[in-house]
Order: sequence, then C-alpha cells, then structure tokens
Amino acid sequence: MSFGLASRPKNLPKRSKRGGFLHFPPWSNLESVDSRDRRHGIEFANGARSPFGKGKVSMSDDESRGEAPSERTRVKHYNWLARYDRKTVEDILDATPLAHVGCLMNGVPFVTPTFFWRENDRVYWHGAAAGRMFKVLEQQDICLTVSLLDGLVVARSAFNFNCNFRSVMLLGRAELIRDETVKVKKLRNFVNRLIPGEWERLRPIHEREVKVTALASMSIAEASCKVRIGPPLDDDEDYAFPSWAGVIPIRYQVLPPEADPRNLPDTEMPDDILKFHLG
Amino acid sequence: MSFGLASRPKNLPKRSKRGGFLHFPPWSNLESVDSRDRRHGIEFANGARSPFGKGKVSMSDDESRGEAPSERTRVKHYNWLARYDRKTVEDILDATPLAHVGCLMNGVPFVTPTFFWRENDRVYWHGAAAGRMFKVLEQQDICLTVSLLDGLVVARSAFNFNCNFRSVMLLGRAELIRDETVKVKKLRNFVNRLIPGEWERLRPIHEREVKVTALASMSIAEASCKVRIGPPLDDDEDYAFPSWAGVIPIRYQVLPPEADPRNLPDTEMPDDILKFHLG
Repeated sequence: MSFGLASRPKNLPKRSKRGGFLHFPPWSNLESVDSRDRRHGIEFANGARSPFGKGKVSMSDDESRGEAPSERTRVKHYNWLARYDRKTVEDILDATPLAHVGCLMNGVPFVTPTFFWRENDRVYWHGAAAGRMFKVLEQQDICLTVSLLDGLVVARSAFNFNCNFRSVMLLGRAELIRDETVKVKKLRNFVNRLIPGEWERLRPIHEREVKVTALASMSIAEASCKVRIGPPLDDDEDYAFPSWAGVIPIRYQVLPPEADPRNLPDTEMPDDILKFHLG
Repeated sequence: MSFGLASRPKNLPKRSKRGGFLHFPPWSNLESVDSRDRRHGIEFANGARSPFGKGKVSMSDDESRGEAPSERTRVKHYNWLARYDRKTVEDILDATPLAHVGCLMNGVPFVTPTFFWRENDRVYWHGAAAGRMFKVLEQQDICLTVSLLDGLVVARSAFNFNCNFRSVMLLGRAELIRDETVKVKKLRNFVNRLIPGEWERLRPIHEREVKVTALASMSIAEASCKVRIGPPLDDDEDYAFPSWAGVIPIRYQVLPPEADPRNLPDTEMPDDILKFHLG
C-alpha cells in the first residue's frame, strides 16, 4: 500500500485536512508534503499539486512516500499524510544532531535529549556508562524522535494555525556496543561528522575515556516521518475573512565561533570549524 | 538539601567534572551553570566562581538551585549540577513552544513533539481529540521535556566535547480539560502568547472546532533542569595541547514573515506578528 498523493481518500470529512491548532506529528492531523523542498511558505517546487490543491509540492515521479515498516509505526490518523521512504527518514536524521529518546525507567516514559548521529541504516548515541538509561536500554523497545521546527503558520482561524516542521520517529530495540575498538571508530565518526577532520586534530582519546562511555545503536528500519511546509490551509469560506495570514519562518542559526581565551597563542581556527551546520 | 555551588562534594574523582562527549541532561555529567546568563562562551557574569574554577557564573546571593521535588526527578549522577528552582524551570519553559511528550502506548514509550505553553504552575498542550495519546494520557505518569540547543562546545579532546543547552523535564499525571469554556479560554491564551492580540483578529472559533480538540494540562511541580553555558572545560594537562578550542553558538532565528498570496488585497500585517520570538 502506498501513501502517495494519489491514494488520498476522496471522501474525507471536510475538517480532516485541517491543522487543528499547533500540534506535531505523528498523531496530529497536519498536512504532509515533500521534505526536500524546505523553502518556507508560498512557493513550492516543481509542479505537482498538493493534496489540498493550494500549492505545489516537489515530488519526482519515481518516488513514493513508502509503506509503514510496522503496524506500530503506521500513522493511524490521516495516514495519507505520513511518509516512510528512506530518503525522507535520512534527510531528517541528518539535519540535526539533537534527538529525544523515550525510555521506560521505573515505570515512567522518560524523555532524554541527546546528541545522536546516523551511519547507514543505524543511529548512534552515547553518554556516561554509569547513567541509568544505558542500564535499561537493551531490555525494552524504545523510541527516538528527531524534530525540526521550520515555521509558525498563521492562519485566518485559530483552528488552522499550524507549524511547519520535519520529524521522524524511530522505534526498536537498541543495543550497546561494547567492543572498544568499534566504540572509538564510531566516536571518531561522530566528531568528524560535526566538524570534518576534527578527531585527528584533538588530543588522542584515552582508554579510560572509552571505558566510561556507553555507546548505543539502533536500526532506522522502523521509522515514520511527517513533514509540513507551505502556507496556511484555511477553510474555504475563511479566505474572505480579512485577517493577515502567512508563515513566520524559523531556523537554526549558527553564529561565528568564539575562541576559548585559554587557547595557546597563535592557535588558528581550522576552516573546518566553519563547516559545522544544522537545520 | 541544596544543590548550590557550596554543596559540591570536595572529593569527586577527577573525571567527574568533565563533559564525557556530547550528551544532554539529565543523566549526563555536564556541568551546570546559571541559566539567566545566556551569553555563549567565554565571559560569565558577576563574580561567583564556577564549581570548576574555570569561569564565573552569575548567581545572586538570594538564589539557590533548589531542591529536587521528588526522588524520581532528582538527578542521580553528579547531582550538584542540576537545578530545580522555579525561576530556571519557568525561564526554560517560556523560551520555546516546542516540547517532547513521553507517553507509554502499547508498551512503547513514544516521544511526540508538540507545541505547549505555560500558565502559572501548569503547562498545556493540545491536539486532535481522536488521537491515541489523549486517550491514554490520564492513565499513567508521563514526561514532558523541553530542550534548547545553544552551542557546540569544541574542546581539546573528544571526551570534553560538549554542547551548551537548556533543558527541563517535567514528570507527573496529565489531565484533560473537558469544559469547553475553559478550553476556549486556554486556547486563546496559547494563540495570544505566540502573537499578542492575535486571537481577537481571527475568525471566531466554531463550537465544533472546540469539540474535536483535546486539551491536556500538567503541573510543573515535579521538574528538574540542566543548563550548560560557557567555554570548554578541558583536562588541566590538555590546555597545553595546541588544538583550537571554543564555542560555536547556535540559536533559533525567526525570519521575516511571508504573507499568504491568498490574503485579501490591502491586508496589512499587524505589527504584533513581528513580536513572535523563541529561544
């Protein structure tokens, strides 16, 4: 089964295509459009009509939104809005180092923000080996969510207020990587992904540092995404209402690096530092 | 018991004050400093020494970092780094509309990004009443986490790489607000908090829109925060290592609003639209 545009049911109740106030995926009823066109608002890319006939979305012919990899990742409400294709999953995972991990501890679903990174079909994150998350991680299925806020969508009614965003939710069983050689290799990948070549410029890692660091890994196979871009989608009759509508774009901004005053004299900043980016 | 600077144990092992790679609170071993001094890097505010002797943190005499409101919110590792005082909790909650809610569904701790807002000692969030989160929310203790990424901290060793951030984690039992008059009042607060006076400019809300919207509320009483600002904190001997160290600041940027091309002719953008901010 495909969740491409063509598969959108024709007999949806009128309200179902609306935003329903500002609420994120994957259970909200936000409209979903192609993630590769990340421009905000108004203009869309290449000619395909959006499912709502109010904009154009970029979507090449050979693409599909994919199929839900499992029942529990299948978006239950308004499922034609979801995306499960690998390209969208990877694009969102690669856009930011910040994830939120859901892990049950003492009966409570704790949500922990953490840096993470992707290599091929797995994500990795690390922390203090003594931390309680890493002690219980392998005994349960967990959830890792990545979300990026791209804009506030100002509609003509409060109900159709919305936000532009990209998000992906991964479900599955994480495993800890205990082999120290592999751990070092992965941590090197992490650092060099943030700043190219940085690992080689750093003081070499100590064995004890590797020992006290836990490294977790999880497959990205069970993933679901939602993406919203574009202008507000108001009720037809509300377009005659005289309030201002539009999009307030939001993005991460990386500011000029600030040198540590304790740097050695004549320490030059490598150009690679300027290659750090996110969003 | 206070977790102020003075209460820091004197006999900590050497490594315990370090970052331990990029990992967020509340179980990482990041150093925590005052949240109201949000300048990045290098200079701190008003003369108090940090617990690490490598910077100054702003902390007025009448303040404390507070006490953990419950055993389960008490930060277990490096607990002198945490903050539980109400001012820090509110400052972080008020800095962004984006939260991640952890809720157990079918045995999995799903993490759902959602917009939220604070009023006094409670947070609120909403969504489609038919969504599965709102059906199970009241039957369990949940977690609502808010985090803001403020910078990448480039140290002289990979182990001391870090990030500057602010985060708060709320635990507790949420309740659904079913009274429709109260719901409308709260949703108005939400919209007007994003953009002052916006609710009054919008097409008035329909009764059916209120009915299909679920509104959840939770106390902020059980909260724990972590905040890191400032330059890298390297091992003493690494300051002689000749690599560049510093901070790459990160922040949210709100870009100029883009008008919906379907706005009525002569629709002017209210100045209040420019008051939307986050970070």
